[in-house]
Amino acid sequence: MAESRTYANGNPGNTEPRGRTENSADLRKLYLSVRATTQALAAPLSAEDQTIQSMPDASPAKWHRAHTTWFFETFLLRPHARGYTVFDETYNYLFNSYYEAVGERHPRPARGMLSRPGVNEIDAYRAHVDEAMLNFIDTGAEEWAQLIELGLNHEEQHQELLLTDIKHAFSLNPTCPLYLPPGKSAAEANDNAPGQGWLEIANGQYTLGHAGETFAFDNEGPEHCVFLHDARIADRPVSIGEYLEFIADGGYRQPEFWLSDGWDAVRKNGWEAPAYWERDGAAWTTYTLHGRLPVREDEPVTHVSYYEAAAYAAWADKRLPSEAEWEVAARMHAAANGQTSAMNPHPRPLVPGFCQDVWEWTGSGYLPYPGFRAAHGAVGEYNGKFMVNQMVLRGRSCATPPGHERVTYRNFFGPAARWQFSGLRLAEDT
Amino acid sequence: MAESRTYANGNPGNTEPRGRTENSADLRKLYLSVRATTQALAAPLSAEDQTIQSMPDASPAKWHRAHTTWFFETFLLRPHARGYTVFDETYNYLFNSYYEAVGERHPRPARGMLSRPGVNEIDAYRAHVDEAMLNFIDTGAEEWAQLIELGLNHEEQHQELLLTDIKHAFSLNPTCPLYLPPGKSAAEANDNAPGQGWLEIANGQYTLGHAGETFAFDNEGPEHCVFLHDARIADRPVSIGEYLEFIADGGYRQPEFWLSDGWDAVRKNGWEAPAYWERDGAAWTTYTLHGRLPVREDEPVTHVSYYEAAAYAAWADKRLPSEAEWEVAARMHAAANGQTSAMNPHPRPLVPGFCQDVWEWTGSGYLPYPGFRAAHGAVGEYNGKFMVNQMVLRGRSCATPPGHERVTYRNFFGPAARWQFSGLRLAEDT
Amino acid sequence: MAESRTYANGNPGNTEPRGRTENSADLRKLYLSVRATTQALAAPLSAEDQTIQSMPDASPAKWHRAHTTWFFETFLLRPHARGYTVFDETYNYLFNSYYEAVGERHPRPARGMLSRPGVNEIDAYRAHVDEAMLNFIDTGAEEWAQLIELGLNHEEQHQELLLTDIKHAFSLNPTCPLYLPPGKSAAEANDNAPGQGWLEIANGQYTLGHAGETFAFDNEGPEHCVFLHDARIADRPVSIGEYLEFIADGGYRQPEFWLSDGWDAVRKNGWEAPAYWERDGAAWTTYTLHGRLPVREDEPVTHVSYYEAAAYAAWADKRLPSEAEWEVAARMHAAANGQTSAMNPHPRPLVPGFCQDVWEWTGSGYLPYPGFRAAHGAVGEYNGKFMVNQMVLRGRSCATPPGHERVTYRNFFGPAARWQFSGLRLAEDT
Amino acid sequence: MAESRTYANGNPGNTEPRGRTENSADLRKLYLSVRATTQALAAPLSAEDQTIQSMPDASPAKWHRAHTTWFFETFLLRPHARGYTVFDETYNYLFNSYYEAVGERHPRPARGMLSRPGVNEIDAYRAHVDEAMLNFIDTGAEEWAQLIELGLNHEEQHQELLLTDIKHAFSLNPTCPLYLPPGKSAAEANDNAPGQGWLEIANGQYTLGHAGETFAFDNEGPEHCVFLHDARIADRPVSIGEYLEFIADGGYRQPEFWLSDGWDAVRKNGWEAPAYWERDGAAWTTYTLHGRLPVREDEPVTHVSYYEAAAYAAWADKRLPSEAEWEVAARMHAAANGQTSAMNPHPRPLVPGFCQDVWEWTGSGYLPYPGFRAAHGAVGEYNGKFMVNQMVLRGRSCATPPGHERVTYRNFFGPAARWQFSGLRLAEDT
Repeated sequence: MAESRTYANGNPGNTEPRGRTENSADLRKLYLSVRATTQALAAPLSAEDQTIQSMPDASPAKWHRAHTTWFFETFLLRPHARGYTVFDETYNYLFNSYYEAVGERHPRPARGMLSRPGVNEIDAYRAHVDEAMLNFIDTGAEEWAQLIELGLNHEEQHQELLLTDIKHAFSLNPTCPLYLPPGKSAAEANDNAPGQGWLEIANGQYTLGHAGETFAFDNEGPEHCVFLHDARIADRPVSIGEYLEFIADGGYRQPEFWLSDGWDAVRKNGWEAPAYWERDGAAWTTYTLHGRLPVREDEPVTHVSYYEAAAYAAWADKRLPSEAEWEVAARMHAAANGQTSAMNPHPRPLVPGFCQDVWEWTGSGYLPYPGFRAAHGAVGEYNGKFMVNQMVLRGRSCATPPGHERVTYRNFFGPAARWQFSGLRLAEDT
Repeated sequence: MAESRTYANGNPGNTEPRGRTENSADLRKLYLSVRATTQALAAPLSAEDQTIQSMPDASPAKWHRAHTTWFFETFLLRPHARGYTVFDETYNYLFNSYYEAVGERHPRPARGMLSRPGVNEIDAYRAHVDEAMLNFIDTGAEEWAQLIELGLNHEEQHQELLLTDIKHAFSLNPTCPLYLPPGKSAAEANDNAPGQGWLEIANGQYTLGHAGETFAFDNEGPEHCVFLHDARIADRPVSIGEYLEFIADGGYRQPEFWLSDGWDAVRKNGWEAPAYWERDGAAWTTYTLHGRLPVREDEPVTHVSYYEAAAYAAWADKRLPSEAEWEVAARMHAAANGQTSAMNPHPRPLVPGFCQDVWEWTGSGYLPYPGFRAAHGAVGEYNGKFMVNQMVLRGRSCATPPGHERVTYRNFFGPAARWQFSGLRLAEDT
Repeated sequence: MAESRTYANGNPGNTEPRGRTENSADLRKLYLSVRATTQALAAPLSAEDQTIQSMPDASPAKWHRAHTTWFFETFLLRPHARGYTVFDETYNYLFNSYYEAVGERHPRPARGMLSRPGVNEIDAYRAHVDEAMLNFIDTGAEEWAQLIELGLNHEEQHQELLLTDIKHAFSLNPTCPLYLPPGKSAAEANDNAPGQGWLEIANGQYTLGHAGETFAFDNEGPEHCVFLHDARIADRPVSIGEYLEFIADGGYRQPEFWLSDGWDAVRKNGWEAPAYWERDGAAWTTYTLHGRLPVREDEPVTHVSYYEAAAYAAWADKRLPSEAEWEVAARMHAAANGQTSAMNPHPRPLVPGFCQDVWEWTGSGYLPYPGFRAAHGAVGEYNGKFMVNQMVLRGRSCATPPGHERVTYRNFFGPAARWQFSGLRLAEDT
Repeated sequence: MAESRTYANGNPGNTEPRGRTENSADLRKLYLSVRATTQALAAPLSAEDQTIQSMPDASPAKWHRAHTTWFFETFLLRPHARGYTVFDETYNYLFNSYYEAVGERHPRPARGMLSRPGVNEIDAYRAHVDEAMLNFIDTGAEEWAQLIELGLNHEEQHQELLLTDIKHAFSLNPTCPLYLPPGKSAAEANDNAPGQGWLEIANGQYTLGHAGETFAFDNEGPEHCVFLHDARIADRPVSIGEYLEFIADGGYRQPEFWLSDGWDAVRKNGWEAPAYWERDGAAWTTYTLHGRLPVREDEPVTHVSYYEAAAYAAWADKRLPSEAEWEVAARMHAAANGQTSAMNPHPRPLVPGFCQDVWEWTGSGYLPYPGFRAAHGAVGEYNGKFMVNQMVLRGRSCATPPGHERVTYRNFFGPAARWQFSGLRLAEDT
């Protein structure tokens, strides 16, 4: 995708797998890197851009910048940093996202009502917390290293949201603002995607989920067994070229391919293509962070909801993989490429050639793994309380910070969400 | 429950397991029995009662009576019965519930707008179709026996809905109408439920899902393997006495027990107890089909949403069982009681002592089993298209027609639904 | 209109002006007549028909029958009839429409949820109250004669609503039920309406509003002076033939003719013709109480909202008359026809040739006349509390009970309402 | 009001009546003055502040600044200024408020989604248009002087809206931002308002509405006669002290004082005091542009809806004046104070002692005067198309630009609006 390439160029980051940070120096380095990336991502945005909220699911960019800072202040500095001075007591109300245990919070759909604190105050807040955090790290925060690492991974999640949220906001503006430099209109050949092959999964027991010392979110564990049946899974996501065939075949007009709730969504919202697409005569364009561009047939389709993903799969007489199948296939692919063995469950990063910069809807509901227990206290609200009404996505997108992704990573959104870089991969029983 | 006992008395039915009907005589007998039960259930309802629709999720009683008839007309008589005369062409529009392949349909929320056809016309429709169906069966419908059996099981599902829907409608009426004779105000001792024990589930592979020749809905199969981890599951559902402790302990006021969407539902709807409950001084009453009665502590709690079930479990420091755990436990219980072996996966009916006339929310999303494929054509819309945004319930309720339930039966509703007879059973990891 | 003629035939009533009833015998006769008419209007409706409510603005037919009865029970029998036994205490909650002073009431949008009391109970309620009322009248109710007369006029208002409400409900039913015998498809010549002339109104002071001893609602008085400017007013309402020209000229697609709120309503509701109209090739049909029929060009247009009336007038480069202009013109017309003098402000009924069985939107907001004071107590809630957000209609419709209309009668609805028999008449400054 | 005094100090303006501008020099001076005032009012607002929209009725401050500029570009420069270069073609879509004749427009509720153009671009837009306008004026725009004057009065209306809209937005911010310097907490005596007297209006004909050469909006004319009945009208608006008695007497809990729609609004919105009020123990505070301050009993009550104004009047056993009564009284007061005679209908500005910096709801619907005709073309959309569903307010508020108000000025809002500086004055029949 145009977006992925430029983003990768602009923010090359560290694509090496990230081990557990083991000492203050490493932690300091990681802290500075993640915090600086957030600021860099917000740099192209004006004070006005950072203020608006285009829908309840999205948040203003300055809110993302403040909320990620609030996390460090609330869970590290306030309780554990001797002599820390709170920057502004009202921020605990304004920038709490959903942690009920921490107190009342500003309602999510009203985040775009807050002109103040302004971007300069948020900068000052970040600087204040950064200074305290670095001091905290330097003077011995080993005990809290894992919590700091959680805060940094949390911030990386918000980096991705910052991009998807501003993309959504800009897409509503008739002046078509650009977040990145203008994209080239692909005059070059618009090739087809390479042919799709299959990865075979044999009937049997598999061990999945996160284990070991490296960082993972709580919802990625515990490690556990699953039984899978014979199946196969595509070796790449569905391409735009393939998805165009679904559209051309009347896919959006035939209820037999759709889940009942999906068909309701099609009719209610007037969907006839992925989000951000517009017809341009016989062709289609899509709004990107580089502006509106023609779609490229060789790229993976993205900005589709779970409903569309499931409808495409039904039209193709296939199905979506379960998240277990997806993870098994990703591990097998890694093993086959010599990066790890299938028995060593932690290939990092996701291996080139398996993922293609697009989140992939799976057919699995976002529910706890066997043996999952949320941590006690506010941090325990991190993931568990969202385990209903959402579907799991696997992989990573062009907006995922390099080094952040994992083969065990469980992303999740409601089935109608389209503003993420979300696509799909096919599977079938054998 | 008051409801269950009287319902069972009034409609004793056949509590023996129902084998696959093997000949015309059996099919005729089953057809007559199921169709007569529907009429008997509607008998206490006036023309006015049968007309109203109290919410979009519910349907008028006369609609249930017509829609179940439409099923036979549409899928059996029209395509397969030589010389069948359609009763009224407009009924195909009015009484199609959601089969897109059969054509346009009257919008669900507007079913209560239809004063006509009236109850007498629906009676005539049923008589017309019954006559044709019996003739169809008598003159050799072996080929379609399974489809007829599906129609009858479908009608039994609507019998349960007819009861839950009229209960909901009556509950809104300030005159407090009774569907059944008045219930006695339990002057007798309101005993506690018996102590709860546990059934142990050992780590390992299990085979689940429907197999064999007896009837099941498509979503109950195919038979497949799952891997379960060590756990245990309660030997009975949560009682009202236990649920009252949760309420008394402030369960409805403490967000830490709730899923995020659940907490939103609590605040938006002002929930502070199960549906139909009202405070009566220090005590509680509940609206039943026998009228408003004091709650009984020894009965299983019912009319709770998935959100409430999950919150109760979190408060009790337990969790809900998965549907696989539930099915394994039910099979083991049956085996232990000599009705079947755990290897014979089809104990029918659900064994006394395991189920207690209340549907039980499980922690499993309603999703297809490995290898599931919807049938082609309109009948294929039966179950598969609802496989999103819903949670599985297992067991049976006091309103489930005797002989209809199965250990593999998968009931499903959205997580906020409370108008079904829905409760819960606890589980935990060991 | 087809509707008006048949209605008039079926319910000829007394078209003579109705004087103030002066003795018990007259009052008894009037009481019996009005009450019998309500029952006659409901006679074609089944129990199911009488139960449904098709929108919050409408009420079920059996509710109308009960509410009008409740009026007599609440304001006459309970407080003033010695030894009266209340029929059912819950009815005070169920059938109170909006009288806050009388206590809590069932929410209006939920009237269609009430299957009970059923039509038979409502019949019994009416009989019980009728018996008590006749006894009350016979044993000396002179003191309450005006309040009884108010109750009867109130019931006549609900007779009209019963008809418009069931028309709306039936119009939503795909089986197209008929309230009246099938209408003839006008094979006869569909003539143009006769040419429209003008009635001149001269600059000056006029006295308007109800005065005298005959019955009128409180909002029709007090008598008061207004100053009118030179203007003229059409001598008949706008015809369907004329309205078709507005449609053909793109009236529904050009914002310049519309009030801002009106244009919003056009777009939101997709209006492109009056309510109940459907295109039939190049022609239009309309749903009537006789079924769906071709529109007749010589009839007054009806089922238009205030927004459409105002847009039509703007398109015609005219305006709507104020209610004062309307009343002055009606009085002048009456005087010119020898029925009354302009100085005698009470011609009754509305003179033939001026009104044409259609309510006419005026350009006047529904606000109190100078000197208006609502009565104290619950009856004072009758009209005054609705004096905001509504526009005045003058005249009478085909559904108005004969003898009920008056030259001072002020009907009122919100500007988007279309389910009444509402049309318009043009005016202009001179 | 705290707000009014500081506003007046900060923006003293010209309180002299403004005559019709007669030459280029006057027009240039007026243009510069009005345009500079807008910029001065926006000066305390950050880029973020100017971007947010707190409800569909309100607009972002930068939108007000751009829209008022668009007016000059669209109605003066584009059609009439030779060689004018349009600043940005997309602005015609973005900053058209409601002029359908000028083309499609950005939906009002989405104005807060527009981060771009930013405040700097809006400044550039204003400068570009100002330069062209001054050149246009200097080179002979006599022909368009009235249209320019309309544009300036239009801009003055938006100056008031800019203040009420930012007040609303700031009031939602938990950090309680100040637009003006902090207000003093009235430690000084909180005196009662002076006793209220009455102005008598005698029965008879009066001439009202705008006439003559000075500027007025089209809806203020034409001059016309009305007939008024004997009445009297209070000599000052209702004070906060008086309104507190209404609250203390349970005014917000007793339906008998309320219009039916008003009572619905009370219950739906949970109103128990004017907008911006909060209980502080036994006392009340209100959010002002100077921050949250204790209410002052001697000030006129403001931020009440029409519903509250009407309920207060009913509680006081009085009524609201009609707009005709209000205008007659204002003219009489002016005559009595020697500023004008009652026959000279144009006292300007509103005379001290009659108005008190608060808009006053009247009992009159916002409808056209006799003889009113909207201008042809887009400018004709200015006022006429809003003449439904709104009530007239008379007077001026603390946020009304000095020199902008007139005795014939007709302000109008929907009956539930509370974010304007709206209060009331009593009247009664005599």
